[in-house]
Amino acid sequence: MANPTAAMLVIGDEILSGRTRDANMHHLAGQLSEIGVTLAEVRIVGDEAATIIEAVRALSDRYDTVFTSGGIGPTHDDITADCMAQAFGQSIDVRDDARALLQAHYDKSGIELNAARLRMARIPQDATLIDNPVSAAPGFTIKNVHVMAGVPSVFQAMVASVLPTLTGGTPLISKSYTVFRGEGDIAGPLGDLAKAYPALSIGSYPFQREGRFGAQIVLRGHDSKLLDDALDQLAEAFA
Amino acid sequence: MANPTAAMLVIGDEILSGRTRDANMHHLAGQLSEIGVTLAEVRIVGDEAATIIEAVRALSDRYDTVFTSGGIGPTHDDITADCMAQAFGQSIDVRDDARALLQAHYDKSGIELNAARLRMARIPQDATLIDNPVSAAPGFTIKNVHVMAGVPSVFQAMVASVLPTLTGGTPLISKSYTVFRGEGDIAGPLGDLAKAYPALSIGSYPFQREGRFGAQIVLRGHDSKLLDDALDQLAEAFA
Repeated sequence: MANPTAAMLVIGDEILSGRTRDANMHHLAGQLSEIGVTLAEVRIVGDEAATIIEAVRALSDRYDTVFTSGGIGPTHDDITADCMAQAFGQSIDVRDDARALLQAHYDKSGIELNAARLRMARIPQDATLIDNPVSAAPGFTIKNVHVMAGVPSVFQAMVASVLPTLTGGTPLISKSYTVFRGEGDIAGPLGDLAKAYPALSIGSYPFQREGRFGAQIVLRGHDSKLLDDALDQLAEAFA
Repeated sequence: MANPTAAMLVIGDEILSGRTRDANMHHLAGQLSEIGVTLAEVRIVGDEAATIIEAVRALSDRYDTVFTSGGIGPTHDDITADCMAQAFGQSIDVRDDARALLQAHYDKSGIELNAARLRMARIPQDATLIDNPVSAAPGFTIKNVHVMAGVPSVFQAMVASVLPTLTGGTPLISKSYTVFRGEGDIAGPLGDLAKAYPALSIGSYPFQREGRFGAQIVLRGHDSKLLDDALDQLAEAFA
């Protein structure tokens, strides 16, 4: 009984150009791991329709759920909604339900729902809206793809709306152990441990701290008792 | 004359599991943008051979240069070198040139070149070694793919070795302008500006700071004079 799988598609050039460091990916990865969904792949692409369409189709075919972030705002470089409609062969136009959400939001703040803002009500015909409690403009779910905003506060609010609708798996428990030895010294015992505990995933993450090499060994699994056993073995091997 | 393109393939589950935030991607993105190479796509995959092989083939076909990080250490979960050999139909074994580098390094520090460490000398037959001044175990270049370590200090040293061998383009200059208005207000003028300056790429990055919405507008291009002109227009439009 493998856990459900997910992928993320980050759309936009702010990470690719080196302008910003990712925050949404890190947030989603943590949230999914808590509910036992395995984030199996992430792709980051620029604002280019052909690449976006190909990527979302590939990920949607291969994984149970896909999350996208970015490109659903009102400006000329926001092409995600149109790409999603095209990827899944749906028509797209301003939808009354989305327009009503925007109208209510902007009426309350006395701001005009102009042509640019109305672009955010363009939603593929069969998509379901995702609530945006921060700034009203909705995300949407099309097939198994949840299309969400790139602004971190909005992205996080949308993730919170979507997660309860997912079928989770057994949450992954992880325990870690730090060894101040080179990976070449621990590789043998670690390989043996991996063979002895096939139900656990055992990763080794080398680091260099103040000139010393070491590794963080991370044991992951669903059975807390088994993890403790393996951790004891590990502590003994590297005592 | 479009700039050369690059992609990055991050291998390993530390980012996917939410354990760590990316650092290597951010470093590479900044370095490439300085020498005028466009980072067009990033994929992050776990330690799974089939996925790694498919991803590196796809990226190698599509972009001028590919950089990978992670999975070339001595532990059981380090399968990158074997995947690269398989992806490009080459044989792989411990190579004398790589073994000599490791031997010299470990002799100097009085550490045994054991079986686990020797795995790091497994290099595909026709690959060229990439220098690792930090911990000796080399990366390698196979076809248009530079295969590098995941430990940030080693990754950065390898990037520094590889970059001078790349054919760069015209470095991208970027100028940015902060507007404290909602994106819906600036979308119109911004779209006009994008039409008036087709040689520039104009991005809008919305943010929420202390409850106020705003956007960072980033103009990118190769011609400094043109950028200044556009920036003046922008300042005028949002004065």
